[in-house]
Amino acid sequence: MNLILLRPEEINNKRVTLTDHRAEHILTILKSSPGDSLKTGIINGPVGKSTVMDVSGDSVVLEITDEGTVPLPPQTDLILALPRPIMLKRILSQAASLGISRIFLINANRVEKSFFGASMLQDTSCNDYLQHGLEQAVDTLFPEISLHQRFRPFVEDVLPKISEEYPVRLVAHPEAHKKLPEAVELPLRNRVLLAIGPEGGWVDFEMNKFEEQGLQPFSMGPRILKVDTAVTALLAQIDLLRQIGNC
Amino acid sequence: MNLILLRPEEINNKRVTLTDHRAEHILTILKSSPGDSLKTGIINGPVGKSTVMDVSGDSVVLEITDEGTVPLPPQTDLILALPRPIMLKRILSQAASLGISRIFLINANRVEKSFFGASMLQDTSCNDYLQHGLEQAVDTLFPEISLHQRFRPFVEDVLPKISEEYPVRLVAHPEAHKKLPEAVELPLRNRVLLAIGPEGGWVDFEMNKFEEQGLQPFSMGPRILKVDTAVTALLAQIDLLRQIGNC
Repeated sequence: MNLILLRPEEINNKRVTLTDHRAEHILTILKSSPGDSLKTGIINGPVGKSTVMDVSGDSVVLEITDEGTVPLPPQTDLILALPRPIMLKRILSQAASLGISRIFLINANRVEKSFFGASMLQDTSCNDYLQHGLEQAVDTLFPEISLHQRFRPFVEDVLPKISEEYPVRLVAHPEAHKKLPEAVELPLRNRVLLAIGPEGGWVDFEMNKFEEQGLQPFSMGPRILKVDTAVTALLAQIDLLRQIGNC
Repeated sequence: MNLILLRPEEINNKRVTLTDHRAEHILTILKSSPGDSLKTGIINGPVGKSTVMDVSGDSVVLEITDEGTVPLPPQTDLILALPRPIMLKRILSQAASLGISRIFLINANRVEKSFFGASMLQDTSCNDYLQHGLEQAVDTLFPEISLHQRFRPFVEDVLPKISEEYPVRLVAHPEAHKKLPEAVELPLRNRVLLAIGPEGGWVDFEMNKFEEQGLQPFSMGPRILKVDTAVTALLAQIDLLRQIGNC
């Protein structure tokens, strides 16, 4: 945890009293005492600093001493064929730590139908995994998650409405002829929408639908990766393309 | 499992009888029957095809029908500050799936000494995690692992001997001024040696030692990543730099 995340509603006159895992982290890992300064962030708000005012038992009182600034929102968003729950947990944390603003979790032919019944989609535990990623990466901006149980309404109704927000739209597909750097124009300065399929990939119908919506297919090469590895690899590669100047 | 890996010593006149998890995979996941063709590879040898000759109970007899070709060895190797065992497992599988030839697991100031006592370093289970990665990525070439319990002898004695094999030598460091694309010359065509530190990073002494050995420091940017996320992200980014033509 490289950042203590605070909820706006728990802050009262710049002060907050923590008694949960954050207090435990401050006391047992950071071993902070009154007067110490900590990096704190307000959810969907600025990253700044707080001072430890009081420590008693397992509670910690912080006072925000430097409001700080709001992080820039990540410029890459993800369409992801719903993976199995254990993989989704890891993906949510890792994607939040690498930086995304939205995740569209969608159905696809090769998604197991049972995944949509996963308990983590019914309660708030997706947020816990996103929060781990934000605490790790020192970010406050929660990615927005939406769930789309039917592929066709997503691609025919939702996708056309959001497409114009994304000048660069990509879909990972092992059989594509282009590699990633050939599928985007460098330097990359725009918002990117990236679609990543299930284990086994997208079926032809799905690829056709994505291409109708202007998503450029690209291949990651001959090595077949697990979905969680592919998500991290591709978010990192898109980030690198943003770092590369005019080529 | 996208590839059935065979050990050279279990092959007899092009035939092999499987009774372990590979037989189970062939029978319960692939649901293969006699006459079916499967992708098989020989450890540190070629990737080709085999035909299912016989199935009885929980054993499967395969005959290699197409010897195939040996994959090209990956051009990136890793120096990694020894992470905690649960993270090392994931890193070994993911790094093998992304493609590396060697991993130097080394000590560093911020490595917990207890990690060197981990049972997985005493038995052969590191190989199991590497094998998962190769089976996933359809590769046969096992990365070579070496363990270096003392930082200084590694960096002063081992590193100078291997350095000339790597025209590009890099060390990830959050405080570095350069980003990755500025730290390498494009197009990237050479072997890369990449050093990734422990949670908390390398200390100054370690950075100085690496820089003396010609490792270029670079930063991944302001977001702090877990070591396993950083390994996948950086191997993917180096792979992307190899895909980018003359800039």
